[in-house]
Amino acid sequence: MTTHHFDPETFFNTMGQHPPALRVQPGDTVVMHTLDALGVDRARIVRGERPNPQSGPIWVEDAEPGDALEVTIVDLTPSREIGWTRFPLAPNVVDPDRATRLPERETADWAIDVEAGTVRLVDPPPALAGLVLPLEPMIGCFGVAPAAGEAIATSTPGPHGGNMDWRGFRPGTTVWFPVSVPGALLFAGDGHARQGDGEISGTGVEVSMEMELRLDLRKRWAIRWPRGITADGAELFTVGNARPLDQALQHATTEMLDWLETDYGLDTVSASHLMGQTVGYDVGNVYNPAFTVVCRMPVSVVDGVRSREGVDT
Amino acid sequence: MTTHHFDPETFFNTMGQHPPALRVQPGDTVVMHTLDALGVDRARIVRGERPNPQSGPIWVEDAEPGDALEVTIVDLTPSREIGWTRFPLAPNVVDPDRATRLPERETADWAIDVEAGTVRLVDPPPALAGLVLPLEPMIGCFGVAPAAGEAIATSTPGPHGGNMDWRGFRPGTTVWFPVSVPGALLFAGDGHARQGDGEISGTGVEVSMEMELRLDLRKRWAIRWPRGITADGAELFTVGNARPLDQALQHATTEMLDWLETDYGLDTVSASHLMGQTVGYDVGNVYNPAFTVVCRMPVSVVDGVRSREGVDT
Amino acid sequence: MTTHHFDPETFFNTMGQHPPALRVQPGDTVVMHTLDALGVDRARIVRGERPNPQSGPIWVEDAEPGDALEVTIVDLTPSREIGWTRFPLAPNVVDPDRATRLPERETADWAIDVEAGTVRLVDPPPALAGLVLPLEPMIGCFGVAPAAGEAIATSTPGPHGGNMDWRGFRPGTTVWFPVSVPGALLFAGDGHARQGDGEISGTGVEVSMEMELRLDLRKRWAIRWPRGITADGAELFTVGNARPLDQALQHATTEMLDWLETDYGLDTVSASHLMGQTVGYDVGNVYNPAFTVVCRMPVSVVDGVRSREGVDT
Amino acid sequence: MTTHHFDPETFFNTMGQHPPALRVQPGDTVVMHTLDALGVDRARIVRGERPNPQSGPIWVEDAEPGDALEVTIVDLTPSREIGWTRFPLAPNVVDPDRATRLPERETADWAIDVEAGTVRLVDPPPALAGLVLPLEPMIGCFGVAPAAGEAIATSTPGPHGGNMDWRGFRPGTTVWFPVSVPGALLFAGDGHARQGDGEISGTGVEVSMEMELRLDLRKRWAIRWPRGITADGAELFTVGNARPLDQALQHATTEMLDWLETDYGLDTVSASHLMGQTVGYDVGNVYNPAFTVVCRMPVSVVDGVRSREGVDT
Repeated sequence: MTTHHFDPETFFNTMGQHPPALRVQPGDTVVMHTLDALGVDRARIVRGERPNPQSGPIWVEDAEPGDALEVTIVDLTPSREIGWTRFPLAPNVVDPDRATRLPERETADWAIDVEAGTVRLVDPPPALAGLVLPLEPMIGCFGVAPAAGEAIATSTPGPHGGNMDWRGFRPGTTVWFPVSVPGALLFAGDGHARQGDGEISGTGVEVSMEMELRLDLRKRWAIRWPRGITADGAELFTVGNARPLDQALQHATTEMLDWLETDYGLDTVSASHLMGQTVGYDVGNVYNPAFTVVCRMPVSVVDGVRSREGVDT
Repeated sequence: MTTHHFDPETFFNTMGQHPPALRVQPGDTVVMHTLDALGVDRARIVRGERPNPQSGPIWVEDAEPGDALEVTIVDLTPSREIGWTRFPLAPNVVDPDRATRLPERETADWAIDVEAGTVRLVDPPPALAGLVLPLEPMIGCFGVAPAAGEAIATSTPGPHGGNMDWRGFRPGTTVWFPVSVPGALLFAGDGHARQGDGEISGTGVEVSMEMELRLDLRKRWAIRWPRGITADGAELFTVGNARPLDQALQHATTEMLDWLETDYGLDTVSASHLMGQTVGYDVGNVYNPAFTVVCRMPVSVVDGVRSREGVDT
Repeated sequence: MTTHHFDPETFFNTMGQHPPALRVQPGDTVVMHTLDALGVDRARIVRGERPNPQSGPIWVEDAEPGDALEVTIVDLTPSREIGWTRFPLAPNVVDPDRATRLPERETADWAIDVEAGTVRLVDPPPALAGLVLPLEPMIGCFGVAPAAGEAIATSTPGPHGGNMDWRGFRPGTTVWFPVSVPGALLFAGDGHARQGDGEISGTGVEVSMEMELRLDLRKRWAIRWPRGITADGAELFTVGNARPLDQALQHATTEMLDWLETDYGLDTVSASHLMGQTVGYDVGNVYNPAFTVVCRMPVSVVDGVRSREGVDT
Repeated sequence: MTTHHFDPETFFNTMGQHPPALRVQPGDTVVMHTLDALGVDRARIVRGERPNPQSGPIWVEDAEPGDALEVTIVDLTPSREIGWTRFPLAPNVVDPDRATRLPERETADWAIDVEAGTVRLVDPPPALAGLVLPLEPMIGCFGVAPAAGEAIATSTPGPHGGNMDWRGFRPGTTVWFPVSVPGALLFAGDGHARQGDGEISGTGVEVSMEMELRLDLRKRWAIRWPRGITADGAELFTVGNARPLDQALQHATTEMLDWLETDYGLDTVSASHLMGQTVGYDVGNVYNPAFTVVCRMPVSVVDGVRSREGVDT
């Protein structure tokens, strides 16, 4: 159970089978530095290219196609005191005739106070003078090398993870990614000091980060989309990435149905009853080339079934 | 501030300019009986037709086009002990190739215990023996007569409200509908004893209800989509109804932007900063002819701006 | 086989169960005057309201729910010399970030020369001086009273027809609408002197018209969406109206599949072979609240099957 | 102006920066063998893997990012006598509740008679006995290495081209692809002996082919999506690839607008007038991970403008 300190020199704008920058054992922890979405590091030096340059890939020994890579987000700490956002709202998240009246896109700096746990605009418009929001660090973009030899831009999420921009990727959350290549090849970057649902201005509060991730394997667990457990331990979740949102929701819902059937031994009817009356949906990003929907199921509901059924996961 | 008891004889399957069944003053409360989605009443007698037969319309004195009708959901009580759901999951919420393997659609009864605050399947499949879920009553379908002389089926939500199936329409919630005709003409029905997000099996736990609603007016408040305040008082919300979800989200987002600009005096840039870093989205229904997305904004964030600005709403 | 001359005084902005303005026998022909999309008549007098005020409804004797109303478009003649269009392109048909740079929407007049069969801008921008386009008259909006008591705005197409804006609704075309109410209640209006696919600037060349339509019935032919035969007699077609285009295409495709199965006695596999290798799709409108996709099948292919099978339609 | 005969040993399932298999000069012609969508060659030997294994990449000397690669489809000849299709219709092209009643997917063989110019099912269901359809060869999947280091699966079209399945990619058609890497790196494969619009059964009549393509460059012509001229020379076209169809249409429409503005010197208003009243849309594939819409403009309309304007393209 080694802890690796990983401060990469090279960054990637696609998730694919790039040469591993670090090799770890299942169970190891990695404390890694990441650049912000434009490639700016903790010293405000540009060291990578847009979009979302990734630290990695990290080779996990023994990871093989058909396994799932388990990533526990232990801690996320902004590594500099200034982040930034874009504004105004992205044209695709408002009605098209409203989009025609949006002002030009610009960039604003935000002061990040890790000690106080706050973010605030450096040079706020008058109406927002004194606005202080909680620091809520999350990972915008992480995942593994995709299947079938693809190399997918770090703008675009897919079955392999990628640029999902879901607020639930916060400290305490566990996520599993489908392993498609030997070593899994984990990438991570694009930290946000905070963000609303949907990343509707096109960014969170973008900042370089120190990310502490614990990596492990679930052998022979052939999942199709990212799955996980929320930071509070209260919910299972599945992630679908596609356009439109309807299709992302179909992917996430189908993945949850498969999970309940395969791992909890439920028939389609029983799983449908549980899901129909208890699921929650979150909107991840609605800005990237593919959108993100998360399907959540209460662990208490699923555990109730499991304990009655004697099914062991 | 009269309380009216309304036990209608006639029910409607469209929201339109039907003859008023009740006339009330702004500020009055109505305790009304509603049928379930198939038209079955509290005595299990079929008195209306599918889909979602509505009690109403209720004429609110002084309501005129350009006003907003305020509806406070005071209380929702299932009025019989048996509800029902459809299963399995609806074919449109799973991947199309998974849809081809879904079993036939059927109906299941649920026992509703108002005292205990629970629902449970009457004849559960073995895996769900002993499953008990919390009673969480909500309104599936309510709204006002639409604009431009339309009469819209109670299957289909729109700017006038309608079949939105959002779990947030629960006791304590306040909602405003855009008034398009004299008297506003409120309709309500389709109570659910509980439901997961999205109404993904095509129903919640469908049941007849006693709904206690307080009705009021905001004069000359020309909103385009339903707006409201969540039951806990913590969030403003706006509702968009359309397909695909992307467009429903655009409507809800644009309505929130307009609200912040018009009522809170924010410019587009300031509103974009607030929304981009703090909004939440909920998925209402993804089953009806039009889908529902809700955009939520923390009241604390908005109030912070208002107090600094001295804007009065 | 009477020919009726119908010059209405009253116009409707919804398709619903309005009082019949004319009663005809199956087989009769109606020569009717229609207003343009803003309600302007052949004398350039405003006599109706936007959007798309309709002439009608026309009651067809013996039409009952479960029948199909057959409308043959005999002739379409612009009834004044000036039409108009909107410009620039609608914001929803270009990429959202391009939409932010569109100029303000305006209106342009077009000279319509029925004799010469041409349209041209009255006051063209310099680049378009001398631009002359063929006159290709079509019906933008026509259909019948919808099912279930709905009254649908003439902005919005659906199973009942309505604002479909398909170029194929030209002289020579036959179309069937599903009859949902006694008398069918046909409405027509919104003539276009010409239009590109999709009505992407939000209008065709809008003009009042004299429309000659022959009306007939196919008894007990329970169709779900408009069907027809193209003006050249070469193709069967079905129409789906929904958003996004994907869903409109699903409706049109399913309706064609049902047609081939029910009327031509084909099993799903045979119909799939034919459709998979021979259908064509047209994009009707992509501007209205619901979009339009048309699925076309060569009559020669279908007739080949019919003659071999001895199926009579 | 050399003619190269290219019979590759190695095939690719992604379009990316793979080692060039052939190097040609601008203006050269390549006569190349391609496998069918499952990797089967002209001798019915499996030599590649699904999906759509590609012959290539072909390096074109002097091609640089910012250029456009011009591909003229000179000839397409099926290289064996048996092709195949899938059936029934794909579940995503019919209404979801119809999808639940589709039979299992299977494969059928088709006899291809190049001499006679026909295709027919080898073992037709009774209803299709004697069905003979015209041979209409087309390219299902071709394109260039994408930008930003991506390697995109040959299932999925994008700005680089790829699996577009448009019937218009037939002999006589000229297409330009945006060059994103040195040498452009052309790939081609997935020939169809014929296909209906949309590839709605998931395949055309899939077959190995001999494809004769003439390759050339337009230097410093920075296009964003594939463009071209139809086989009859009558129309310019642009291609958008995305989901839903609405977004594919937005891409194609925006690309046509940009083309008219940049190359023909039209302002947005003039281009909008022309496009609004004359464009046509085709549906390419509606089956792949991204869908395809083609926007077509009559050359006569555009040439009319050009001759008046003295703009030279």
